[in-house]
Amino acid sequence: MTETRTRIVTATNELFRRRGFHGTSLKDVVTAAPATTGSVYHFFPAGKSELAEAVLRETGETYRQLFELVAADAPTVAAGFAAFFDGAAAVLEETDFIDVCAIGTVAREVASTDERLRGAAADVFAGWIATAAGRLESSGVAPAEATALATTLVAALEGAFVLARTARDADVVRHTGAHMSAMVERAIAQGATRSR
Amino acid sequence: MTETRTRIVTATNELFRRRGFHGTSLKDVVTAAPATTGSVYHFFPAGKSELAEAVLRETGETYRQLFELVAADAPTVAAGFAAFFDGAAAVLEETDFIDVCAIGTVAREVASTDERLRGAAADVFAGWIATAAGRLESSGVAPAEATALATTLVAALEGAFVLARTARDADVVRHTGAHMSAMVERAIAQGATRSR
Repeated sequence: MTETRTRIVTATNELFRRRGFHGTSLKDVVTAAPATTGSVYHFFPAGKSELAEAVLRETGETYRQLFELVAADAPTVAAGFAAFFDGAAAVLEETDFIDVCAIGTVAREVASTDERLRGAAADVFAGWIATAAGRLESSGVAPAEATALATTLVAALEGAFVLARTARDADVVRHTGAHMSAMVERAIAQGATRSR
Repeated sequence: MTETRTRIVTATNELFRRRGFHGTSLKDVVTAAPATTGSVYHFFPAGKSELAEAVLRETGETYRQLFELVAADAPTVAAGFAAFFDGAAAVLEETDFIDVCAIGTVAREVASTDERLRGAAADVFAGWIATAAGRLESSGVAPAEATALATTLVAALEGAFVLARTARDADVVRHTGAHMSAMVERAIAQGATRSR
């Protein structure tokens, strides 16, 4: 049964990556998983919104852990951020520019209409920002500036996905990553002398 | 009749700002404009996709012109970019965090499924990037770096909208704008010595 749940969440995430939240129906999920309608409601009694919340929180945590893995492998903190952008660019190319991460798309679709999903997306982004800020702080960036800079890094990543998918050009993500990496380098060089 | 067309495009844009592309039906448009279904098809014979293309192109051009106005008023090029981010932050707060600009949302929803709309959004973003790059070049930034930096600026703006709406906190846009403005200042200071 746990396997069925995983199949439903994974299929829903894939559908969101291609068509977004409103473009995906429970019927699409049932077909893609595959699963019965009954099993979808067994795991997600409140239906699509509850399922979507699980997709946001679980894929959000997966991406957060992926960032930590990539960052741990990089020679410097700045290089870790650049490597994460470069990895996302490669995924865009390999998957013919479907969404690397459906969270930003779903967040924009529902921010004004579904408080449950807005809250879930906010938690995911806050978790990413805290993780990135932690790495900056551990390199001597002052806490307030670390959080502000981490927020800009996540914003730039999300926005670069929009432009890259729209232009079908992953170099947008690479260029943005290079600029962000340079910004991180400077913030670390300035150390604790800067605060905002 | 031209007035009716304007009413249809404006109402559709407002609906997209709250619910995105897939969350908006032609029936919603007819009710909100208000207009008859016949008049929608009179101006947009191909229906929702053609209407959405008009919304993207026309609001995209409006935002581009708004940027030029804001930039022309600012004391420096870097201050012009900061002022544009700050203005968007104020709009987010004044409108209870509905989408400042539906283009990014619609672009993400349709990038993998509607080639006509993907192309329209790509044209809009390319126009913004060219305008921003033009201002950077006129301040001595080398052309290739001006385009790369302008792309990062537009990406950061689009991504900041996602995070701000999700967290219901417009300071995300202000912080991102401050970082982008500082990046522009440095690029201008480095002048034509930098190329990528």
